Amino acid sequence: MPKKSDAPSQRARLKRGHERGDYKHQTIHAILDAMPLCHVSYVLDGSPVVTPTFQWRQGNHVYWHGSSASRMIKKSDGADVCMAITILDGMVLARSAFHHSVNYRSVMLFGKASIVSDPQAATDRLKAMIEGLYPGRWDMLRPMNDQELKATTVLSMPIDEAAAKVRTGPPIDDDEDYDLPIWAGVLPVSLQVGAPISDPRVLSGVKTPDHAQNFKIGGHNKKP
Amino acid sequence: MPKKSDAPSQRARLKRGHERGDYKHQTIHAILDAMPLCHVSYVLDGSPVVTPTFQWRQGNHVYWHGSSASRMIKKSDGADVCMAITILDGMVLARSAFHHSVNYRSVMLFGKASIVSDPQAATDRLKAMIEGLYPGRWDMLRPMNDQELKATTVLSMPIDEAAAKVRTGPPIDDDEDYDLPIWAGVLPVSLQVGAPISDPRVLSGVKTPDHAQNFKIGGHNKKP
Repeated sequence: MPKKSDAPSQRARLKRGHERGDYKHQTIHAILDAMPLCHVSYVLDGSPVVTPTFQWRQGNHVYWHGSSASRMIKKSDGADVCMAITILDGMVLARSAFHHSVNYRSVMLFGKASIVSDPQAATDRLKAMIEGLYPGRWDMLRPMNDQELKATTVLSMPIDEAAAKVRTGPPIDDDEDYDLPIWAGVLPVSLQVGAPISDPRVLSGVKTPDHAQNFKIGGHNKKP
Repeated sequence: MPKKSDAPSQRARLKRGHERGDYKHQTIHAILDAMPLCHVSYVLDGSPVVTPTFQWRQGNHVYWHGSSASRMIKKSDGADVCMAITILDGMVLARSAFHHSVNYRSVMLFGKASIVSDPQAATDRLKAMIEGLYPGRWDMLRPMNDQELKATTVLSMPIDEAAAKVRTGPPIDDDEDYDLPIWAGVLPVSLQVGAPISDPRVLSGVKTPDHAQNFKIGGHNKKP
């Protein structure tokens, strides 16, 4: 179990379910790398806004991107953001309503977003996103042009204030409830990737690349 | 395509990808009902915070719950919140990096949270959550006691300021790029539920209920 003093900051410290917390980079990076889908929240005109997007990690930074014309993207340079990554691994059915739960791997990150303004650096980051999802794809593509690069804003945030929270295993019921004749257990949930569906306009003779055949998402939940 | 005037409020109006927006209750409700996992964001001491939790819908309200001891739950009574529900349906691989995308069904809800303070109403809501996930389960369980009810806070928000956004189908490439010998297409992604794993301490003779055998999540994505 992590110590409270392990938390990198007050706001990143887990307030509830502390025993499920983990502040180790290894745990946090593994969850970020397994699940590109994230939810980023901002304060816009005093109100909270949360939007889904994809994140990717390079070293100790996390990146995401959006349209340069987006009001949210423009306003997020230098702004406080909170990012959540959540992988649902199972439904946990207990003997009482109260102890129902879910198995999951999650990360919460706090920090200030900043725009990657150097065009070469932004290009390198976008390449890393594509290559992280689909190894070998960047060099197969029609190269990105200046107009596309200008239309895209890449944001970054250091992974300094972060906490992972993980639940695995069976339900935890009250001692006396184990004697009740009630079914309890776990329903494993995972993201599955189906067979690639080729765009009808793919030229004949073009093969489906390995990165499309072998795509995985959600990582491996070792302990259901 | 929805008209801008269809949007229920300025902040709920989609700013980007307007052609993928949908303000119809039918669309919004279907996404909420298909995916209990949601991300709720608040402003806490001036900073954004986003946390994953489960939501469920009854009529034109959405509900979620948390520990009564949680600072975030206590502070959210009467507070502005934004909730996002996101179902990832596929990875969209285009002929240029710029046109890569994902297929998804998503909802964004804005509003003020309020605590369901009446104990009977809160109990009814919690029952609806359990029954929505696992039909018939509530009456099989050891009944909820007063201490558990006190430890649980149910929050509600009307589904008044809401927008759905949905992408389906193949990549949309630049006209001239369709002549390039590059594979493009969709990798379908969906949540799968595995066979129930009984808690080792389930009493012998207790059968796995239908709601555990038949559990589904993520709804059906008709058009990959």
